[in-house]
Amino acid sequence: MLTLDKIYHASYVLRDIARKTDIIAAPTLVPGMDLHLKTENLQVTGSFKLRGASYMISKLSDEQKAAGIITCSAGNHAQGVAMAATKAGVHAIVCMPDGAPIMKVENTRRLGAEVRLVPGTYDDAHDYAEKVAAETGATFVHPYDDEDVIAGQGTIGLEILDQLSDVDAVVVPVGGGGLISGVACAIKNLNPHVKVYGVQADGAASMVGAVLAGQWQTLDHVATFADGIAVKTPGTITYDMVNQYVDQIVTVTDDEIAAAILALLERQKVVAEGAGAVSVAACMFGKLPLEGQRVVAVVSGGNIDVNILSRVITRGLVMSGRNAELSIALTDKPGQLELVSSLIAKCGANVVSVDYDRFDPSLPISDCILRVGLETRDRAQIELIKTALTEHGLSVVAER
Amino acid sequence: MLTLDKIYHASYVLRDIARKTDIIAAPTLVPGMDLHLKTENLQVTGSFKLRGASYMISKLSDEQKAAGIITCSAGNHAQGVAMAATKAGVHAIVCMPDGAPIMKVENTRRLGAEVRLVPGTYDDAHDYAEKVAAETGATFVHPYDDEDVIAGQGTIGLEILDQLSDVDAVVVPVGGGGLISGVACAIKNLNPHVKVYGVQADGAASMVGAVLAGQWQTLDHVATFADGIAVKTPGTITYDMVNQYVDQIVTVTDDEIAAAILALLERQKVVAEGAGAVSVAACMFGKLPLEGQRVVAVVSGGNIDVNILSRVITRGLVMSGRNAELSIALTDKPGQLELVSSLIAKCGANVVSVDYDRFDPSLPISDCILRVGLETRDRAQIELIKTALTEHGLSVVAER
Repeated sequence: MLTLDKIYHASYVLRDIARKTDIIAAPTLVPGMDLHLKTENLQVTGSFKLRGASYMISKLSDEQKAAGIITCSAGNHAQGVAMAATKAGVHAIVCMPDGAPIMKVENTRRLGAEVRLVPGTYDDAHDYAEKVAAETGATFVHPYDDEDVIAGQGTIGLEILDQLSDVDAVVVPVGGGGLISGVACAIKNLNPHVKVYGVQADGAASMVGAVLAGQWQTLDHVATFADGIAVKTPGTITYDMVNQYVDQIVTVTDDEIAAAILALLERQKVVAEGAGAVSVAACMFGKLPLEGQRVVAVVSGGNIDVNILSRVITRGLVMSGRNAELSIALTDKPGQLELVSSLIAKCGANVVSVDYDRFDPSLPISDCILRVGLETRDRAQIELIKTALTEHGLSVVAER
Repeated sequence: MLTLDKIYHASYVLRDIARKTDIIAAPTLVPGMDLHLKTENLQVTGSFKLRGASYMISKLSDEQKAAGIITCSAGNHAQGVAMAATKAGVHAIVCMPDGAPIMKVENTRRLGAEVRLVPGTYDDAHDYAEKVAAETGATFVHPYDDEDVIAGQGTIGLEILDQLSDVDAVVVPVGGGGLISGVACAIKNLNPHVKVYGVQADGAASMVGAVLAGQWQTLDHVATFADGIAVKTPGTITYDMVNQYVDQIVTVTDDEIAAAILALLERQKVVAEGAGAVSVAACMFGKLPLEGQRVVAVVSGGNIDVNILSRVITRGLVMSGRNAELSIALTDKPGQLELVSSLIAKCGANVVSVDYDRFDPSLPISDCILRVGLETRDRAQIELIKTALTEHGLSVVAER
C-alpha cells in the first residue's frame, strides 16, 4: 500500500528532473471562489506524466535498467516516459498505433525514445508492447496502475500543500486514476481536512461508473475530445485508492471543457488540453460544493493540437457572443450590401466574411441570402445589429 | 539618475504585489540556443506594467495619494495602474479614447479604476488627462518616461539574475523604453558582461530610429498588430538609458511576431501578446548574435484579443503547411466531389470546408471551381494531395 514516505522519496528523486510548477491565482475565473491553478501544463513535456515515469524508472534494478523499458501510448505518457528514460540513461521503446499523429511520433522520438508504429488500434499496440516485454525482458511502464507511478504523480500533492496555505479543496482530472490517487494519498495523509475531488469527461466516465457500481468495471467505448482522459479501464490499484481517499467524482461536458480552455487562454494566458481543463470546468460550472473556498485546480497538461485549439476558440467565441454569422434575406438590387455594412459599422462590429447565396429554393427568384461573418463584443451587440437590420426592412433569417 | 539601490527598494515594495514570475526553459524553440522565458505574461494583470505603476505610487506623499492619480491608456498600463492604485488605496482615473474595446474598459473598471471615455483619439485622451491633472492636482502616471516607473520594471532584471545562473544575454521588448531601461540598468550594474538586447516591431521602430539618428526623435505613425509596443515617441529618460546600457536594438516583422506567438502557444503552452513575443521572435529568426548562448527572453505580456489570437493561429497554420485551401477546377458532372474527397482521404488529410464556385468568368461554362479547406500535417502532405489530384486529371488552380 502506498504510503507518504514513498511520495516524499519520489519528490527527492524528481528534484532535478521535474519542475516545481507554479501555483497561479485565478481571481476572475469563478466569482465567489478563491481559485488557484497548479500549472502542470507548464511542466517539462507539457504534462505531469514525467513525474510518475521518472520515479518508476528510478526504482528499477541495474539489470532491469539494462534490459530497457517499453510502453504503449500516443499521448502525454509517451513523452513523459521518453524524457524520463533519456534522463536516466535507459533505452525506451514506445509503441503507438500506426495512425498516431506524426507530431506525437516526432515529439516522442525527439525526446530520445524508439517509437514503433504498430498496425491497428491502441489495443493492438498495447498487445504488441506486452509481447515484446515478455520476449526481451524489458519492463512495461503502466501509465497509471502502478504504485511507483502513482507515487511520482503524488509529488504534486506535496507541492500544493507546500506552495499554498489554507487550501480547502483540490480538484483533479481523472482518466485511469493515477494522478488523483497519488495527489489524494499525499494530501489526505498530511491533512485529511482538505477535500480532494475528481473530474471526468461525460463521455469517458469510467471511474465514476465503477465507483457508483461499487466495483471495478470498464466501459465499452469512450467519446470526448479530452483524449488525455479518454480511458475505458480504470486501474485496479487506483480504483481502490479513489474509494479510500477521494471525496467525490463528477463529470463535465465537452462544451464545458471547451469553455474552460478558452477562459484559461484569455484570463490566465495558459494553454490547457481538454484533460487538463476538466478541473477548471468543474469549478466554473458549479459541479462541486466549493463556494467561498480556497481551491486548487490541477491543470494537468497542455498538449492540445493547435487545429483543435483553433476550433475550441471559434466555438467559444460563438457561444459567448463574440463571433456571429447572420443570414440576411435581400432583394437582389444595388445598394443592399452597402446598407447592411453601414448598419453593422454603426453598431461598432467588425465584418470578417461576406457570402452571397442566390440558390436557396425557399426564396423568391429575385431575392438572395447574404451571409455576414462578424466579430462582436457580446450577445447584446448582436441583438443591436439584428434590431437595426429589421428596422430598415431587412430580414435576418438565420444566425449561427 | 537611476541607481541599483532604488531598483532593490522597488523589489522590496513589490514583494506582496507582483508575482516573481517563473523563468521557464524553452529547449525546442531555437535549435542551438539555451533559451529561457521570463514569463511576465503570467504576471498579475497579464503584463509587467503593475510593477512600475505600483512603485511609482508607493513614492507619492500622503497629500499626493489623497489627490489621486490619473493616466491615459487603453492597454496594459491601464490595468497595471488600476490594480496598483487599488492595492495602495489610491483613487485612479484612467482616460481612454471612446473607441477603446469594451473588454479593456471592463477589465480596467473591474480592477477598481474610474474609466473616463474621451471622444477622439489616444492623443485627445492624453490631453484630457493632463488637463484634469492640472485642475485637480492628481498625479499623472507616465507609462514609461519616469524614473520610479523604470525602477519598478527594473525588478525584472534583478529577478532574472537571481533565478538563473550564467546568463549570457537578456532580450527585451521595446515600446517607449521603460521596461528595457529598468532591466538593463539592473543587469549592467550587477554584471556588465551580460548582454542586454532590445527588440521593436518593424512598423513601430521609434527607439531604433532615435538611436540610429543619434538623437531623440518621434515617428509620425506606427503600424503593427503588437499594440503594446506601437509607440510613436520614445521617452527622453529612456532614450538616454538605452544609449547608456543597451548593447543593440533590432526589429522583427509582424509575420515573425505571429510565428513566435504560435510557437509559444504550441511548445510552451503560454499565451503571449504581440509586444510580448517580439523578444522570442528575434531569437527564432536570428536577429541577434546568440548562437550557443544562455539567453533569457522577457515575454512581457499576454493580453491579446482572442479574435486576433485566432487569426494568428490560422495564419501560422497556413504558413507552416498545417492548413490549406485548394481551388480545384472540375468538369461539372456527378462524382467529381467523391473523387476529390477520396483522394484527400487516402492522403490522410482532413476536410474542414467545401465551397463551389460556378461563376468564375475564366472558366468554360460547364466547369466550376471547388474550394476545399484542409487540415494537413505539413507542406509535404499538401504536395502529395496536389500530385494525387493532378494524376487523376484534376487541375489545382489556386492554393492558399
